Amino acid sequence: MTRGFARAEYEARVAAAQARMDATGLAAILLTTEADLRYFSGFLTRFWESPSRPWFLVLPVSGAPRAVIPSIGAALMAKTWIDDIRTWPAPAPQDDGISLLAEALRETGGPVGLPMGRESHLRMPLDDFALLKEASGLHFTDDRGIVRDLRAIKSEAEIAKIAETCAIAGRAFDRVPEIARPGAPLSRVFRDFQRLLLEEGADWVPYLAGGAGPGGYGDVISPATDAPLASGDVLMLDTGAVRDGYFCDYDRNFALGAVGAEARDAHLRLIEATAAGEAAARPGARACDVYDSMAKITGGGEGAGRLGHGLGMQLTEGLSLMAGDDTVLREGMVITLEPGVALGPGRIMVHEENIVIRKGAPERLTRFAGSEMVEL
Amino acid sequence: MTRGFARAEYEARVAAAQARMDATGLAAILLTTEADLRYFSGFLTRFWESPSRPWFLVLPVSGAPRAVIPSIGAALMAKTWIDDIRTWPAPAPQDDGISLLAEALRETGGPVGLPMGRESHLRMPLDDFALLKEASGLHFTDDRGIVRDLRAIKSEAEIAKIAETCAIAGRAFDRVPEIARPGAPLSRVFRDFQRLLLEEGADWVPYLAGGAGPGGYGDVISPATDAPLASGDVLMLDTGAVRDGYFCDYDRNFALGAVGAEARDAHLRLIEATAAGEAAARPGARACDVYDSMAKITGGGEGAGRLGHGLGMQLTEGLSLMAGDDTVLREGMVITLEPGVALGPGRIMVHEENIVIRKGAPERLTRFAGSEMVEL
Repeated sequence: MTRGFARAEYEARVAAAQARMDATGLAAILLTTEADLRYFSGFLTRFWESPSRPWFLVLPVSGAPRAVIPSIGAALMAKTWIDDIRTWPAPAPQDDGISLLAEALRETGGPVGLPMGRESHLRMPLDDFALLKEASGLHFTDDRGIVRDLRAIKSEAEIAKIAETCAIAGRAFDRVPEIARPGAPLSRVFRDFQRLLLEEGADWVPYLAGGAGPGGYGDVISPATDAPLASGDVLMLDTGAVRDGYFCDYDRNFALGAVGAEARDAHLRLIEATAAGEAAARPGARACDVYDSMAKITGGGEGAGRLGHGLGMQLTEGLSLMAGDDTVLREGMVITLEPGVALGPGRIMVHEENIVIRKGAPERLTRFAGSEMVEL
Repeated sequence: MTRGFARAEYEARVAAAQARMDATGLAAILLTTEADLRYFSGFLTRFWESPSRPWFLVLPVSGAPRAVIPSIGAALMAKTWIDDIRTWPAPAPQDDGISLLAEALRETGGPVGLPMGRESHLRMPLDDFALLKEASGLHFTDDRGIVRDLRAIKSEAEIAKIAETCAIAGRAFDRVPEIARPGAPLSRVFRDFQRLLLEEGADWVPYLAGGAGPGGYGDVISPATDAPLASGDVLMLDTGAVRDGYFCDYDRNFALGAVGAEARDAHLRLIEATAAGEAAARPGARACDVYDSMAKITGGGEGAGRLGHGLGMQLTEGLSLMAGDDTVLREGMVITLEPGVALGPGRIMVHEENIVIRKGAPERLTRFAGSEMVEL
């Protein structure tokens, strides 16, 4: 599949933002995080792993976006559709792009919107943000949720990329019997599973979690220990792999030999809950409705309070399938269905699939698991 | 090597912070980012990849740290040395831990220090930060650079972890002849090199960059394309792999068959510059002095303005080897030496090694490259 997107896709994203900025009285939006900046520019690099340099993109209410970035990124930004690229030799402790950014913002006249709501953060030092406010003399306010709202609805080109990543992970899950057996340390299984994801086409593996234990596992965010898998264990692997900047986020449970009836029943219940979530995930339904349909079967969440979430340029983004989230599902939203069941003290099981909301029934982006765990 | 650190190490980190907080009139420091939170708690998870939940650690000027975290992390935090763990069922749009955090901070009386300077950011929504200020009624100020200063000096246990990660990458670099040859697409080499890092013991590979081209490469932050390697190319691979939460960050250049004299000479110059940097990297020298000693040989930077940086829990952290950074080197600082040379329009070469500042000569954490590139 072709890397990146056609210029028209970026132009459409910017035009949609500008229409809403115009309607809500914003002269500019300032973006500072990897996903937000990439959404409008196509700037894709793993260099964000370094915290040493800030990166800025200014969306004016009319006209072309302006990249204000460290000079080390100039060559890569020049390969995107962005033409207005202003650089400084970062890191520059005395003025780390602030006067350059203030000038780019002043050209818009302000006010300047920033993503300030859920899941957002400002990726620049607070000291520098204070300097920016002073140097620009502009009013900074929230971005009216514009960036979040736009990113929530995926284009067909974005959906195709997520589907490709899901397929890569699917092939890696098919190969788990190669790497997991009684006696294998969980830490080695984690390492090997990342290798399988790379072999099957992932560009990189930003996220891998999982667990293993007799009849369930303790939690789903701990790193793997060197404890060996044992016969009777349930093994769960949950990955956020990336291809061309788009994530999958799903898991699979495996049975190491014969596992107990409780775990087998739990898995069946998870599959039923997923099916109920899929049936409820229609345009016009609310996130909490989908949650309800699943929670009825599982008896509530895994302690995290939600049974799924949006997915795309980040491992988790946008809505949460939980009580209290009344976000209305719309065509083009990509979400995970992630029911969990509590089996006993410190013992849970979870399951996860990825779908896209379509007119009528959702489209599956993952090859849904069967009700029986694959036996290793 | 044992995972994590002894309790005494965390206690020493907190005690050192508290002594400086006391001296500078801070009642608490609030931490929100992965590395800062892990430094004082030992909380290690890849779950930070999800932006949906904030995580907080409060260091009071006296007494034990308080973790204020989503309930999904309670089981993992309970495995650390932290006893005071307060949780809420995040995400909770109406009050995403803010009242709980405000209470934990109010117990200290304030003022509350936050990392606000270089390389820092506040990992929580600005809207929530405004709510926190209001709910707590406390004064928020900068943390006097306390966290940054403490993290800059590595303990022996930290140095051992970085050395282990460097050794893992060294074994992977030794195996590059297995994966790179004329005709191999650069994107596959990137994928395969990550696999080698995992096979050699990396827990994961947060960062991989590189480049390839006849007699040099264009930049060092672009993702790999599918363009095949060709005879006469110089291939550079630069990795930030992680083992137990600590990075290496170094690279190697390889010659695909016979490369031109210019590239061979450039590599020799890079090795000489590295040696000059190593010779200059003594306790008491300034970062800019080490830069000068290298820049004299390379004729300046690679456009990024610096020829090395601190290293540890993050790919890059702390000082920069560049003009204008007068940070004084101290024993226990781990840094990279990263000279670069410009060879022509859009054509550079870079080289990187990792060292720790010791009394007298620095200690090498990487097996330094020879002056001849390894030929593939």
